[in-house]
Amino acid sequence: MSDMHTFTTAISRIVSNETEEELILRGRRLTDLIRTASFAEAVFLMLTGRMPTPGQARTLDAAWTACVDHAITPAAMIGRAFASYGTSPTAAIAGGVLMFGEITGGAGEPMARLMSGALARAGATGTEASDDMIAEAARTIVETAQKSGERVPGFGIPAHAVDPRAPALLEVARKNGAAGVHCRLLVALEDELAKAKGRRIAINLDGIVAALVLDLGLPIEATAAFVMIPRSFSTLAHFIEEKAQRTKWRHVPQEGVTYTGPMPEGSKT
Amino acid sequence: MSDMHTFTTAISRIVSNETEEELILRGRRLTDLIRTASFAEAVFLMLTGRMPTPGQARTLDAAWTACVDHAITPAAMIGRAFASYGTSPTAAIAGGVLMFGEITGGAGEPMARLMSGALARAGATGTEASDDMIAEAARTIVETAQKSGERVPGFGIPAHAVDPRAPALLEVARKNGAAGVHCRLLVALEDELAKAKGRRIAINLDGIVAALVLDLGLPIEATAAFVMIPRSFSTLAHFIEEKAQRTKWRHVPQEGVTYTGPMPEGSKT
Amino acid sequence: MSDMHTFTTAISRIVSNETEEELILRGRRLTDLIRTASFAEAVFLMLTGRMPTPGQARTLDAAWTACVDHAITPAAMIGRAFASYGTSPTAAIAGGVLMFGEITGGAGEPMARLMSGALARAGATGTEASDDMIAEAARTIVETAQKSGERVPGFGIPAHAVDPRAPALLEVARKNGAAGVHCRLLVALEDELAKAKGRRIAINLDGIVAALVLDLGLPIEATAAFVMIPRSFSTLAHFIEEKAQRTKWRHVPQEGVTYTGPMPEGSKT
Amino acid sequence: MSDMHTFTTAISRIVSNETEEELILRGRRLTDLIRTASFAEAVFLMLTGRMPTPGQARTLDAAWTACVDHAITPAAMIGRAFASYGTSPTAAIAGGVLMFGEITGGAGEPMARLMSGALARAGATGTEASDDMIAEAARTIVETAQKSGERVPGFGIPAHAVDPRAPALLEVARKNGAAGVHCRLLVALEDELAKAKGRRIAINLDGIVAALVLDLGLPIEATAAFVMIPRSFSTLAHFIEEKAQRTKWRHVPQEGVTYTGPMPEGSKT
Repeated sequence: MSDMHTFTTAISRIVSNETEEELILRGRRLTDLIRTASFAEAVFLMLTGRMPTPGQARTLDAAWTACVDHAITPAAMIGRAFASYGTSPTAAIAGGVLMFGEITGGAGEPMARLMSGALARAGATGTEASDDMIAEAARTIVETAQKSGERVPGFGIPAHAVDPRAPALLEVARKNGAAGVHCRLLVALEDELAKAKGRRIAINLDGIVAALVLDLGLPIEATAAFVMIPRSFSTLAHFIEEKAQRTKWRHVPQEGVTYTGPMPEGSKT
Repeated sequence: MSDMHTFTTAISRIVSNETEEELILRGRRLTDLIRTASFAEAVFLMLTGRMPTPGQARTLDAAWTACVDHAITPAAMIGRAFASYGTSPTAAIAGGVLMFGEITGGAGEPMARLMSGALARAGATGTEASDDMIAEAARTIVETAQKSGERVPGFGIPAHAVDPRAPALLEVARKNGAAGVHCRLLVALEDELAKAKGRRIAINLDGIVAALVLDLGLPIEATAAFVMIPRSFSTLAHFIEEKAQRTKWRHVPQEGVTYTGPMPEGSKT
Repeated sequence: MSDMHTFTTAISRIVSNETEEELILRGRRLTDLIRTASFAEAVFLMLTGRMPTPGQARTLDAAWTACVDHAITPAAMIGRAFASYGTSPTAAIAGGVLMFGEITGGAGEPMARLMSGALARAGATGTEASDDMIAEAARTIVETAQKSGERVPGFGIPAHAVDPRAPALLEVARKNGAAGVHCRLLVALEDELAKAKGRRIAINLDGIVAALVLDLGLPIEATAAFVMIPRSFSTLAHFIEEKAQRTKWRHVPQEGVTYTGPMPEGSKT
Repeated sequence: MSDMHTFTTAISRIVSNETEEELILRGRRLTDLIRTASFAEAVFLMLTGRMPTPGQARTLDAAWTACVDHAITPAAMIGRAFASYGTSPTAAIAGGVLMFGEITGGAGEPMARLMSGALARAGATGTEASDDMIAEAARTIVETAQKSGERVPGFGIPAHAVDPRAPALLEVARKNGAAGVHCRLLVALEDELAKAKGRRIAINLDGIVAALVLDLGLPIEATAAFVMIPRSFSTLAHFIEEKAQRTKWRHVPQEGVTYTGPMPEGSKT
């Protein structure tokens, strides 16, 4: 049991004395970061304690761009519906965050754990994993999924034949030296899945984000948040647009609802 | 009344046909943005329909950096407390978002409206406002606040003698040609307030973010979100660190609680 | 500025000593309340410091029953959509709470303030207000609304010609001696509105709940919560039912979305 | 994949035609429920499709009373902190809901699943389970927990030597004929745990609520919500009280924070 006034943190410290007013973030002055670093560098530093290479920062920034919006997704739909109910933008953003579940946006973390575990078992934990080790890890994941009847997370998307974000992001990661063993495994998994299924199911956004979180050395518990937080700007944008449209009370019309329960005596409907 | 299956949007569109799989964001291909644009550019584009100049994008990115963390703020405290309760990171991030209210993080939008209105009344709506117009707008704001006994939002911060983030951010905005009439007004307000109060109360983060939102031409309803969304990464970082510390049930110890209500008969405490 | 370890409250106190383990709620033992009181009595006591009469408790309980569900409302829709996204019930309940805004479920508090103010101006603050005073307050509210072009909140509901919950609840309140001056004003308002509009617009749930909150002497800031909290059980029920139906990813199909923004060069769609 | 305009439900249906304006809830008219049923009956009906016996309804209502408040719990603390940040009551209630996690308030559902499974394995699924079967199920649960080193959920509470709510609630359930095989198992578990640990660890609120959810035949996924939703009124009450106290910005003072990370060169603190 802990209380609400004793905290220990290596993340940051407020400095306020005669000579300095500052926020120290992982050993760096926030004002220096504001002046010379990018937001992706600051977030990377905050989460890991290390400054990323320029290529890593560029890749993380690109991953957020890939998540920025995807038409009327559930997060955008919530932003719009909430605007029509007259809520604050804050409520809409929180509502948009909360809709991330196991099915929507939640594939990343399980996928990251799956890849991480399979590589460890194949002995491929370093950056110098051989193609054979990668292939073995991919085969194990696909075989295990097929035996248990479960899907391999991180592949396929209803709205597209091929999710266009994954190859673009993979290209950025490779160009910037940020694609490592987990990106290689992801590509191998796509091939392995194609063999097993007889048709190609392309890497989706959750899949590539999971691989990048691992290759960048970011904490695995942050996987879903790396989609969710950038996507909050989409909730905001759709909230603002809907507000300007002055819609009211977005709802499910009764024609779409089938009631299968009993009716009371005397009811004529 | 609107339903849940008819939406009109100028923000984005999914393309999925024989020749193209794509997400069009405000007329641009998302895959191009992933490859060549920054996240700040993508968000700016999504919210305004225009690509920012490189200086505007750099300034927006720096504003997010300024918001990334500030030690055990309420948003961080919620992240840590929720970790100790065993919630998901999603619940913690939503909880951190929800704590933004009129007092904490909510000064930006009223400040933006105040500045926007005062400049309009002073005839200084364009970018070419004279110093006199700016000074007049500043005087009006300070005088109005003093008459009504209300504080001018956007100035002062409990943790610091001077909020170090505002000057750093202002410097970035100026260097990048992104500081306009609202930043000038903000600086004039600081001077005017100092005269009225007899002591300098420095611009705080909410104040500078409000001025930048206006100078960048971003929607005023987004002001609070430009602090809240970047700050979500702080909630996440503190959640992860607290989880690793394995604290349980952060709570208010009974010693700190004073009960001022009645006691039942026979109670000995 | 306050900290997180010093609180003063007249609501409750934990007792834990050699002779007693107890929670004192407003001077009563919680274990006595569990044994002899109803939940409506406990909530009433917690919010006001007074035990309600049996009739007041019965009326409050009936008000919650009136809010328990209303088919696929936004709160139920969110419960169901979130189930299809694989969230926790907790996230769904919070999402359902958050959708209460100015338009959906938010009419109660403004209505309560409107009624309260109009009665005060008409000199009818006590329980012995004359019919003339009530009629004057009603006329003032309707006239003010007509001049400003705003709607009087608390009347009309899209799903029904007449909201059936209001008369049932009013009947319960009257039978139980809990309907006071605010219920009388609400009925007078319905008449006054009918005259002004040329057609009857019946009292809705928000309207009757607002009147009851005032007649019961409950805090006005609780008005929306008296709909929202009971409605949380609806979110829960629909979440559980949807989960059992195993739907996945409730979303807006692209056919319903009209994109009005620009398209990039070369796009064939 | 499902859309947002086709829903199938056995919970409720809106009736609006020439002869009737009504909401049918599980085959009953809502206006009849408002007039003649209690809120506990309505919620029970909504969740199960059956009307409870008067004793079952009384017990469910008493369970909510037991959850109504418990001094400055995390849910109350969030209500108070959010009031000091200037949020809406809605945001505070959602924040209070979201803090329910595996550790705080989350023991109920795992406990319910544990009891349900152990009784099934002991052959004691009916209401006529012998004392031997119950004892065997209790032994299995305790032994399994001891082998795995895990705690049996549903016992013990930091604030009390004995949680006073559990015996009071158990008494109500027994008197009203609502205590069944799961309550018997819970009591047996307390004895079995005392033998194993050498000291008595009393049943807590989560434990008794879990047993009652099962004995009442309510859905197991509702267990946490039966604490969370009634507790929302506590968040509300503390929010309102704190608002009246006009506190501002409840925060963690810097004295309580220990920074263990590095400092930049030249920093004097």
